[in-house]
Amino acid sequence: MTRISRVELTPVAFADPPLLNVVGVHEPYALRTIVQVHTDDGLVGLGETYAADDHLERLKAVAGVLPELDAFDLNELRRRVRDVLTAGGTKVGGMLNLQDPADVVLSPYEVALLDIQGKALGRPVVDLLGGAVRESVPFSAYLFYKWAAHPGAELDEWGEAVDPGGIVLQARKMIREYGFTAIKLKGGVFAPDREVEAILALADAFPEHKLRIDPNGAWTVDTSVKVARELDGVIEYLEDPTPTIDGMAEVARRTDVPLATNMCVIAFDHLKPAVLADAVQVVLSDHHYWGGLRRSQLLAGICDTFGMGLSMHSNSHLGISLAAMTHLAAATPNLMYACDTHYPWKTEDVIKPGVLAFRSGSVPVPDGPGLGVELDADALGELHEQYLACGLRKRDDTAYMRSVDPGFTPNTARW
Amino acid sequence: MTRISRVELTPVAFADPPLLNVVGVHEPYALRTIVQVHTDDGLVGLGETYAADDHLERLKAVAGVLPELDAFDLNELRRRVRDVLTAGGTKVGGMLNLQDPADVVLSPYEVALLDIQGKALGRPVVDLLGGAVRESVPFSAYLFYKWAAHPGAELDEWGEAVDPGGIVLQARKMIREYGFTAIKLKGGVFAPDREVEAILALADAFPEHKLRIDPNGAWTVDTSVKVARELDGVIEYLEDPTPTIDGMAEVARRTDVPLATNMCVIAFDHLKPAVLADAVQVVLSDHHYWGGLRRSQLLAGICDTFGMGLSMHSNSHLGISLAAMTHLAAATPNLMYACDTHYPWKTEDVIKPGVLAFRSGSVPVPDGPGLGVELDADALGELHEQYLACGLRKRDDTAYMRSVDPGFTPNTARW
Repeated sequence: MTRISRVELTPVAFADPPLLNVVGVHEPYALRTIVQVHTDDGLVGLGETYAADDHLERLKAVAGVLPELDAFDLNELRRRVRDVLTAGGTKVGGMLNLQDPADVVLSPYEVALLDIQGKALGRPVVDLLGGAVRESVPFSAYLFYKWAAHPGAELDEWGEAVDPGGIVLQARKMIREYGFTAIKLKGGVFAPDREVEAILALADAFPEHKLRIDPNGAWTVDTSVKVARELDGVIEYLEDPTPTIDGMAEVARRTDVPLATNMCVIAFDHLKPAVLADAVQVVLSDHHYWGGLRRSQLLAGICDTFGMGLSMHSNSHLGISLAAMTHLAAATPNLMYACDTHYPWKTEDVIKPGVLAFRSGSVPVPDGPGLGVELDADALGELHEQYLACGLRKRDDTAYMRSVDPGFTPNTARW
Repeated sequence: MTRISRVELTPVAFADPPLLNVVGVHEPYALRTIVQVHTDDGLVGLGETYAADDHLERLKAVAGVLPELDAFDLNELRRRVRDVLTAGGTKVGGMLNLQDPADVVLSPYEVALLDIQGKALGRPVVDLLGGAVRESVPFSAYLFYKWAAHPGAELDEWGEAVDPGGIVLQARKMIREYGFTAIKLKGGVFAPDREVEAILALADAFPEHKLRIDPNGAWTVDTSVKVARELDGVIEYLEDPTPTIDGMAEVARRTDVPLATNMCVIAFDHLKPAVLADAVQVVLSDHHYWGGLRRSQLLAGICDTFGMGLSMHSNSHLGISLAAMTHLAAATPNLMYACDTHYPWKTEDVIKPGVLAFRSGSVPVPDGPGLGVELDADALGELHEQYLACGLRKRDDTAYMRSVDPGFTPNTARW
């Protein structure tokens, strides 16, 4: 038996550029919690998750009931998580308003236990998930409208992007550095016509690249249908043009462009209504809220069974999450789209460099035991100090935007 | 790496009583194929499956492409199985007319690889499946109408059962010996009124036991509804009263008695139509045709997600299958019904005795590495000789019944 002895939770903050979205703008720091699960035989399993204060409290409550747990007993892990958590929703920040905290809290612990299992067996996590169907995992260039700098701060290396020309320049830089072959534009920031123009400019500049746009539910059903018609044949899917399963279903009835979501289907409870309404053609999975890697595999199997495509969502994250995403994607045969990642936007990390690298837009699956990545204790300490110093305790893009533009209103289904 | 070196397939025959069902009567021998997968580091993984001649040919074709495969690479196993098998259906005997042979052929190999993985890690298979949520797995008393003996043969220990009194006596004997707390009656043999009478007699004799009846689609929709009304509150579910998803859906609309199936939903392709039609409330899983233990866990997750109950189906089987069923059921939180098993009906086996035992109707999960059961080489040899000698090469209950009753017709939706 490999039993859990103790758990360390370390909230960290890392620098994040002023990326614009429907609810506001990214604050100067993104927050994450680094989870270290120690075993009685000296192994350490790693996990990474959100760090909003109420989420951190839940993580702590669960940490208290984990000692003595067998690192292979994922069913018992899930039972203990559900036992500890009281009912009620959790808002982890940004657009994600997660109704059932159990899968969200389960996730980093499940990843850490799989990391431990892999280390105990001398096998990479991908082997525990059924084996690699691809040696490296394609990711997409995740473009954002952005300011040139945070208010009062120095310019960052990316510069401003508030029009089609700026977006194309951003794409050129990101593709030159990472080699991505798919491009996603985060929309919902400007009027739909202007964002359509940016996609058409990208199509012109990158005729071989797959394109997507994600306005995070900023549009009405009619606007969504109009944009879908304008971009039919240009984009591979249209992501969350409008809110709710019913809204997406109505758009789906009026266009052949595949609709994708990580907003109206974000928990297992949403799948049956979405299937019955034929609301979405692609689900963007995310192991951080779908309950970890095994439950994300269940989601993948459900998509396969019910004829839905599968892609992968990303929030701002560090290297532990990228490793977990890569192992999961490598073991998932029906993941047929390049995964989203915020990775290029960060300049700091908690893991030792050298394991994760982008080659032609793809990340080779780490081949070391477990997740294959190692914590850098100094870096972890520095980013924890940064967390303590920065004062942020949850993500609030809207409040930050209002500090610059007091009249700002999140744009859900506004256009 | 633990790589496959070679595969041994051994068809066996074991004595089977004259059990009656909608398509005829069990022949004097039931057939199974015992799969042994050897690795280059000296491990042997066990699997058990059907032995119909065309299925055996497919198993052999796949065996040829398995050497060098890493025993952890279940995705690659599945890919090779799908590559080798040509399209087209497979009839493994009895009522099971399986449309996609890939999951059927995959199953025993997947089980054997999990057995190898467990042995390599010193862990029972249940740990690889997420850990035991129950220490022992409840099974049901699986009652059959039966003749007193095969034509021309000696009486068996069970005697004749062709009326309510005989069924109650059979139940008493089986429950006395095994301790079951749930009872399933295989119906579809006599007129529905007579089978309802048998269920009512069982309810009278065993007021604390859960009851089910399974006529294997012998009834029309109207008859199914009539029986459902008569047995409302008496049975925990009504299994396959009528054929097809559409037929079951119509019955479901007209009764509150939960409907279960292992006939109209027997592959992943059937799940979406069944969900859209709201045709069944309980799926009886069976790892032998759902593609092994991991894919049966996917089925379990789908049932959980789409609000369907989960039970477990059984054909005539030996100890390797019972061990696999027990590990799977122990790791499946939402398996809330006692599993079916034909185990009490057999008098021979290929495994060494002592590991699998029924206590109060339940089988404790074997705690040895892998499946926890060992082949008995002498017994395997004897049952293989019996296979060679008996002349049966596929299951054909109808032909056997017609050798006694030339005018016999299978009864699908006849009543």
